[in-house]
This record gives sequence, structure tokens and C-alpha cells, in this order.
Amino acid sequence: MKKVTIYDTTLRDGAQAEELNLSTLDKIHIAHKLDEMGIHYIEAGWPGSNPTDKKFFDKIKSHTFENAKLTAFGSTHLAKTTPENDPNLASLLEAETSVITIFGKSWDLHATTALGISLERNLELIANSISYLNERVDEVIFDAEHFFDGYKNNPEYALSAIRTAHEAGAARLILCDTNGGTLTSEITAAMHAVTAALPEAQFGIHAHNDSESAVANSIEAVRCGATQVQGTINGYGERCGNANLCSVIPNLELKMGIETIGHENMQRLTTTSHFVSETANLRPFMRQPFVGASAFAHKGGIHVSAILKDSRTYEHIAPASVGNEQRVLLSDQAGKSNILFKAKELGYELGKSDPTVDRLLKELKIKESMGYEYSVADASFELILLEALGKPLNYFSFHNFFVVDAKREGDAEPFTEATVIVDVKGQQEHTAATGMGPVNALDRALRKGLERFYPALKETRLLDFKVRVLSGAVRDTGGTASFVRVLIETGDKYERWTTMGVSHNIIEASWQAVVDAINYKLFRDDIRRSQ
Amino acid sequence: MKKVTIYDTTLRDGAQAEELNLSTLDKIHIAHKLDEMGIHYIEAGWPGSNPTDKKFFDKIKSHTFENAKLTAFGSTHLAKTTPENDPNLASLLEAETSVITIFGKSWDLHATTALGISLERNLELIANSISYLNERVDEVIFDAEHFFDGYKNNPEYALSAIRTAHEAGAARLILCDTNGGTLTSEITAAMHAVTAALPEAQFGIHAHNDSESAVANSIEAVRCGATQVQGTINGYGERCGNANLCSVIPNLELKMGIETIGHENMQRLTTTSHFVSETANLRPFMRQPFVGASAFAHKGGIHVSAILKDSRTYEHIAPASVGNEQRVLLSDQAGKSNILFKAKELGYELGKSDPTVDRLLKELKIKESMGYEYSVADASFELILLEALGKPLNYFSFHNFFVVDAKREGDAEPFTEATVIVDVKGQQEHTAATGMGPVNALDRALRKGLERFYPALKETRLLDFKVRVLSGAVRDTGGTASFVRVLIETGDKYERWTTMGVSHNIIEASWQAVVDAINYKLFRDDIRRSQ
Repeated sequence: MKKVTIYDTTLRDGAQAEELNLSTLDKIHIAHKLDEMGIHYIEAGWPGSNPTDKKFFDKIKSHTFENAKLTAFGSTHLAKTTPENDPNLASLLEAETSVITIFGKSWDLHATTALGISLERNLELIANSISYLNERVDEVIFDAEHFFDGYKNNPEYALSAIRTAHEAGAARLILCDTNGGTLTSEITAAMHAVTAALPEAQFGIHAHNDSESAVANSIEAVRCGATQVQGTINGYGERCGNANLCSVIPNLELKMGIETIGHENMQRLTTTSHFVSETANLRPFMRQPFVGASAFAHKGGIHVSAILKDSRTYEHIAPASVGNEQRVLLSDQAGKSNILFKAKELGYELGKSDPTVDRLLKELKIKESMGYEYSVADASFELILLEALGKPLNYFSFHNFFVVDAKREGDAEPFTEATVIVDVKGQQEHTAATGMGPVNALDRALRKGLERFYPALKETRLLDFKVRVLSGAVRDTGGTASFVRVLIETGDKYERWTTMGVSHNIIEASWQAVVDAINYKLFRDDIRRSQ
Repeated sequence: MKKVTIYDTTLRDGAQAEELNLSTLDKIHIAHKLDEMGIHYIEAGWPGSNPTDKKFFDKIKSHTFENAKLTAFGSTHLAKTTPENDPNLASLLEAETSVITIFGKSWDLHATTALGISLERNLELIANSISYLNERVDEVIFDAEHFFDGYKNNPEYALSAIRTAHEAGAARLILCDTNGGTLTSEITAAMHAVTAALPEAQFGIHAHNDSESAVANSIEAVRCGATQVQGTINGYGERCGNANLCSVIPNLELKMGIETIGHENMQRLTTTSHFVSETANLRPFMRQPFVGASAFAHKGGIHVSAILKDSRTYEHIAPASVGNEQRVLLSDQAGKSNILFKAKELGYELGKSDPTVDRLLKELKIKESMGYEYSVADASFELILLEALGKPLNYFSFHNFFVVDAKREGDAEPFTEATVIVDVKGQQEHTAATGMGPVNALDRALRKGLERFYPALKETRLLDFKVRVLSGAVRDTGGTASFVRVLIETGDKYERWTTMGVSHNIIEASWQAVVDAINYKLFRDDIRRSQ
């Protein structure tokens, strides 16, 4: 069985993505998560480029990793100096990693115009830098920057750059599609040329996604002989990003029978993908292949009825093999079969001709036209289902809320206060609370009124709060008067659940979601007690 | 020069995407936008599958299109009936399009298990349906569903399915990778087989993105002889989506020298992509190749200084060729060169050693650590720059605001009211307004106080309002007390601009963004007057 090593550069090239900023602590958390999944190499930063990366390497020295080798990244030495006196190479060695990756120019244009040196001198920089580092660390990896553009422009020179690196002792030659402009058939041709020219060398591929071909290009390079793939979790990276390891790994493992991190580790892909997007404070990409929320989500009626017979009919792999799961979406196009499937998933067996199903379908369509989106708020859907089944919840009833935000000259933040009146078990509760914002104040006032009766509410934690302005409505009524959808994710020691509210008024939308979240918690506790 | 036709199925297959719901009016707007860009075929819906699509075809009959042919999509006739009596084929003809696309089974497993019929009967359905339609419309296109899976499982049968369609008169045979599981090298092999088996047939490719290879697979199919690509704008579609036409078109035109919609039309790609995402109420994908906001955005210091010399060094194509543009990002990693570039873009020439630059860099880093993200709010950045240059704006000054949201039992929405006290040109203005929500009420009260002095404010329109909960903060303080970033896009007859606010309190964050938006408008008006 062929083996391919996975080289992750989320912490270095991934951090070049717009909107992505990682703290030192974030980077350490991510490195451990990658290690746990069996990634072979973690490119942890460029110590010569900024003090943050340098600090990071100082910190991470005290950490140990089970599977991954940490690598420091940098460039060949400066043209005006020698390896011994080069500050970049010095900072690479100070990082004290067992592996160092350096990039050099293989595109003649870059050597002459970007560096402003002769082609010959560029080869010297490559040879000298690698020889120097090779005596001081276990393994030196050479990234041939712009290799494919270089190969198109001047194939002989591009080959001589990697030959030089090979002869100087680089353990591996990485062909980089730095600008991401290369098409797959060009990868095939270049790979045939390099493997013919240097039959004993080990090659790797480092692809960018500017032509939306980074994954296909990486797979094709492996098919043509590359034994390492460099990429990032979720494809984060400069401009359009890097080859997405969340797609590269299962393509290699499941479709080409190539061993990378192994089938068992691969089941961590979905949680690792979420962990990195959450740490990076980036919204997950729903349509992301393999690990995205939509990757195995079925909406069309024909598809839904077919996967109920045999999931292979509309799924290219088993979702569980990458830690993901099949979902059936409720939507405008939802037929009864979708609702039955969803209800069954939640533990309610409904007959196809049950009048509840028709009533629910009708109500869902009305709500969805207002902006409710039940496919992302399972708990609110279950509450609606309970009502349709004639089992509404009566833990408390609403009378009144009142929220004030007041700010005066010189205040850093407004003063916020909320009052709530609710009936609980026959008693009227009137409570007040301040908060960090209006929703926080309302939430606190409501809980103050309820926790005396339902102490289990103290166990719940608000995990996430999302606000989506529905832009269809923006066009009709103007920005600050548009419809908003609020999603709240809540958790306790047993589970997590998502609730939703929709209104012109963000306070009202949030209130709906908070009320649903509390009702759902109390309902689930009752279920657990009765089991 | 080789020509390839582009077949857009955003309105049909694209509409299968999770979170994507298009109204009849949305669909008509999108169809015209596609037509304007020179798309050759627009698959407008599946009239047999739901009443919405049927209604849409009735409506669109009165519209004329310059470039595009509209097509109706449906399946081969049911096994238990004949073409003449089949309701699906009847509804296709009722759509009155000159082109009809029907899909049929080419994977033996699907014929026998999903349809439950013999392999022979399946071929009859294909032949009968195509012959019947071919006598009644100008052009029949055959979508061979699951062709590549079928070809892997039973190559002979898959070939006999498309041969049957060809002989029955299908103008074009579309090879569908319905489950999206096919790798690029498998496309190459299958394409060689089909072009050898049916040298006179015209082939097309319909790829899904489940292996993150849909664009590469489409390009490879064209390289091997396909003359039509089916896909969607932004790659929207079931599960992981379809081949993204925004990437397929420029890859074909710019890298393979193949004519599709032509170079001039291609400059509309970015606006068309935005138009569709806006209409579909989906947040644009920043890292989207070619048309995404980050596609030509540079963050790393080395990249920025290199593109200032020659943009080819880190850009695979000229951004303008697809209607996009180069951007330099301000960020933690921003060196002085990024700030100088950005200031210059805004019309301020600063020297490298100007103390303003250091001061600004320092302030930006503090603000960014709080959650401000200036790369997405140019107008707020410019206001900060003005302050750093010692030219703060003094159109009005703040004293006080007060917002109330009150809801009583039985109210559908809370009652919302805001009061504002500001000083304008030496006068104190105290105003009050109601609103659809707290931010709307505040915005209206503030404008009420200012419009008497600055009537030009009446020209402005709030175009978009975005709320982002900063999830880093969620972990620290819990959901409803987390930091929020509000972005507001405002427009007048001259331009559009984006402003930002960050706070624990959504009211305060919105207030900051509203104040910046108004200040920016007044400042720009002054600039225009002085020119």
C-alpha cells in the first residue's frame, strides 16, 4: 500500500487568509488537534518574518507531540550574505525544530526581477542554504516556489533549481503552485518531467486554489508520484486558500487506497475542521466537501426517497468515515417524507396520513416565508412539532418585558436594564436585571424569575449567538428596519441544542430564541426523568 | 478557436442548495442577469416536480432573452406509462421552451434498485422519451445521471445508455457526476472511452463538487472533447454544490484559449456572482476563486512589496479580466507598506517616516485586538486616518441616547422608542422617534436631529446591516454577553461605503456604525464641493 505524508501549514500559510488571526494560544491548541489526528508535519510559522511567530516557537518548545514533527519555515539566505551570517537561517535554527522547510525561487522571472540576482546566484543560494541547514537539523524540505509557472516559462531552469536542492541534500522537493493558476493537466505533464529527471528524489505538492483546482491538482500529483501533500485545514490561506486537507485526505484514503493518517484518525476530520474554524473565529463553509454541514444534506424529494432505500444512490462515501452525518432538510420543497424522516429522527413515529403532518407542513411553509429556517434549529422545530401534536409546553407564560439602553456623554458603553413579568406555576414573577447588552439583560431577568422554580436552568450555558440579517427584506424596508434571524446554541451536561427567533426587532427575535432554549431544556429534563 | 457552450442550472440544481430559496421574481431577475452575461443555456426549473417551477415557466413566457435559450428539465417517462400519457413529459412541453433537458439512468444499479425495472426497459424509456420530445421541440439534451459511477460499475451498459440517447436524436449527451465522487483521472479515462465509442456525438459535462474537484473535472472533460459545461453561479447546488461557472469560464477562456461567453462578457463575472448571492440571500464566499473579495487580496508583507513591483508575481490572472480588483489588507501582520498603500488608495500621500503612520499602526493593532476589522470597513478606516492626520470631523457631538423596547402579553412585536440629544452647529437638538427595532429607532431619531442642518442626509440609504458575533469572545463570557461587530453599508447617488462598530452591546455597536456612516457622508460631500 502506497503511503503519502500529510504536511499541514494552517498555522503558517493558512494564517495568511483574510479575516484569519490566530493568537499564540490558538496556534498551540490547533497544533495539538492536528497531532491528535495523526498529521505527519506541522509547519508552525515563519520565525524570521515576525516576532509573534518567533514567540510562538519559544512557547511550543515545552510541548510534546505524539505523531507530528514541527517545522519552521523560511527563505533561502539573502543574496548579500552567507548562510553563517544570515539572520533568517539563524532564526530558523533558533526555533529548534527537527525539520526546517525553506523556499527558494524556481521561476527565472522571480529570481531576476523579484530578487534582482543572476540565475546562477539563485542556485547558489539554494545549494548553500540547504547544505548549511542539513548539517544542523534532521531533515530539510525544499519548497520550490512558483515551480509550475517556472516550468512553463523555462523548464530547464526550473528543473535545475530542484536538482540543485536535491544534490545539496534536501530530503524532499515540494513543487509549489504559489499563484494557484495551474490546471490539472499541466500538473500531470510537469510531474512526469520531474520524476523522469530525478528518479530518486521524493516529491511533494503545495497547491493554491486560485483556479479552484487545488485539491484535484494535489490528487493528480500523488497519482503521478508525489509522496507528500501540503495543505491546510478547511483550505484556509492567502487569497483563495491552499489545498484543503479535509478533502485531500479522504480522496486519497477512500478513493485511491493510499494510506495517509489512517481510516480511524480520518473520523476526526469533521470535528477538527470545526475546531479550527471556531478557533479562527470564521463561520464554517456549509457546502464544504466531506466535512461541511451540507455535505450529506438532502433536500430534493427524489433524493430523499432514494437515500432512504440505499444511501449510495446520492452519497459518494459513507459520511461516518469522515465523522460527518447524513441530514434531511426541511424546506419549501420538503415533501411529507422529509417531515416524517425528521420527526422519526427526533423519536416521533407519525403515519403518512396523520393530519398532524399536513398541519405541520402548512405552518412550516408560513414560518419559512417569514424567514424562519428550521433546518438549522432542530430544537425550535421539535417545539413546533410538539404543538402540532397537541402537546404544547406550559412551564411559564409571558406577561411583559421592558428593556432600556441609555448612554450619556463620556460613557464607554450604554447602561442596560431589563424587567420581565412571567407566570410560573400559578405565581407571578416580576424581576429585573442589568446586562452587557439588551439581550443579555433580558436573558438574565427571565432566568432570575425561573430558576427558583427550575434550578436545573443553572446548568445551561449559552454557547453561541448568531444574528443574520435577511437581505431579501433589506431591499424592501432599508437596512436598520430589516428582518433579523437570531440563532442561539445552548448546552448542558447532556447535549447542545439550537433555537431560533425572527423579527424586525432584534430584541424580539432574541427573546423568542431564549424562550425556546429554556423550554427545550425543561422539556428534555422531563423526558430524561420519565425514562 | 474551439468553442464551448455554457449551460447554467443555478435556477434548478443550484436551488437545491441548503439555505437557498428563490422566489419567482428572484428567478426572473437572475435569468436576465445570466442572459446579459452571454450564458448560452439557462435551465430554469423542473416543471413536473413542483407547482412553483410550473408557475415560473408561465410567467417567464412573456420575457425575451438576447443570448440564452431557456430549458425545462425533467426525467424520462415513467416505466408504467408511455410518452404520450406521461404527466412529466406533458409538463415539460407545457413550459414551451425551445430546448428540453431530460435525465435518465446510466448506472445499472440505479435502474434496477431505484426504478426497479430491467436494464432493457430503462433503455426503452430513454429512447421513447427522446424520440417523442425531439418531434416537438428544437433541441433535446440528455443528462446521463450518475454516468461516471455507472461507467465504473458496468462500462458497457453506461455506454449503451448514451448510445441509445444519441440514436434517438439527443442533440447532446451530458455526462453527469451526480454524486460528485469522481476524481479527475477517472474523467480522462471515461472521456476517452465515450469519444471513441461515439465519435460523432456532442458531449457535455455536469460535475458536482463532493470531492472538491468539480471545476478541475469540468476543465479536464473539455480538454478531452466535451463542448458544453453545465454548472451554477458560485457553485451553488445540492450538498457541496455544482461546478462553479465563475471559475470554469475564466479557466477555459484565459488558460485554455477556448471561447465561451467571450472576454468582454467575462468582466461581468464578479458583479453577476454578487448579484446572485445577494438575491439568494447568501453571504458571499470571500475565498471564492476569481470573483471573491479575497481572490486578489494580499496580506503578507513580502507579497505586498512584490505585487507593487509586478502584479504577476502573486496573481495568476489580471483581476479586471473578471471584473474583480486587487486589494491590500490591513492586519496584524500589516507592515507600514500596507498602510501607505491603503492611504494612497484613499488619496493621502504619506511618507514612510511620517509619525502619523506609526501612530496609526499602533491604534489599528489595539482596535483589531478588540474585534474591529478595518479590511472590511474602508469608510471607518478613513475616518480613523483623518483623526491620525489631526483632522477630526466636527459635524455634530453626542450628549445622550435612550432606547426603550417594551412588549406586553398579546403584542406581536415590542413597542420601540428612542431619544437622542446632540449638539449641531452650536445648537442642542433633542429628538425622539419610534422604529421597527431599537437600531432603527435610534437611527431615525439621530437623523431627525441632523437633517435640518444637513438636508443631504436624506439622500442616503442604508443598504445592508450585518451583525457578527465574535466567537472568540463567546468562549470567555457566554453567548448573549459576547462582543458583536456591526457592519453597515450605506449609499447615496455617488457611491457606497461601509462602516463598523464593536461592543458588548449591539445597540452601542450599531450606534458607532451609524455615526460613522453619517460623518462619512458629510465629509465626502465637503470633498466633492471643494473639488
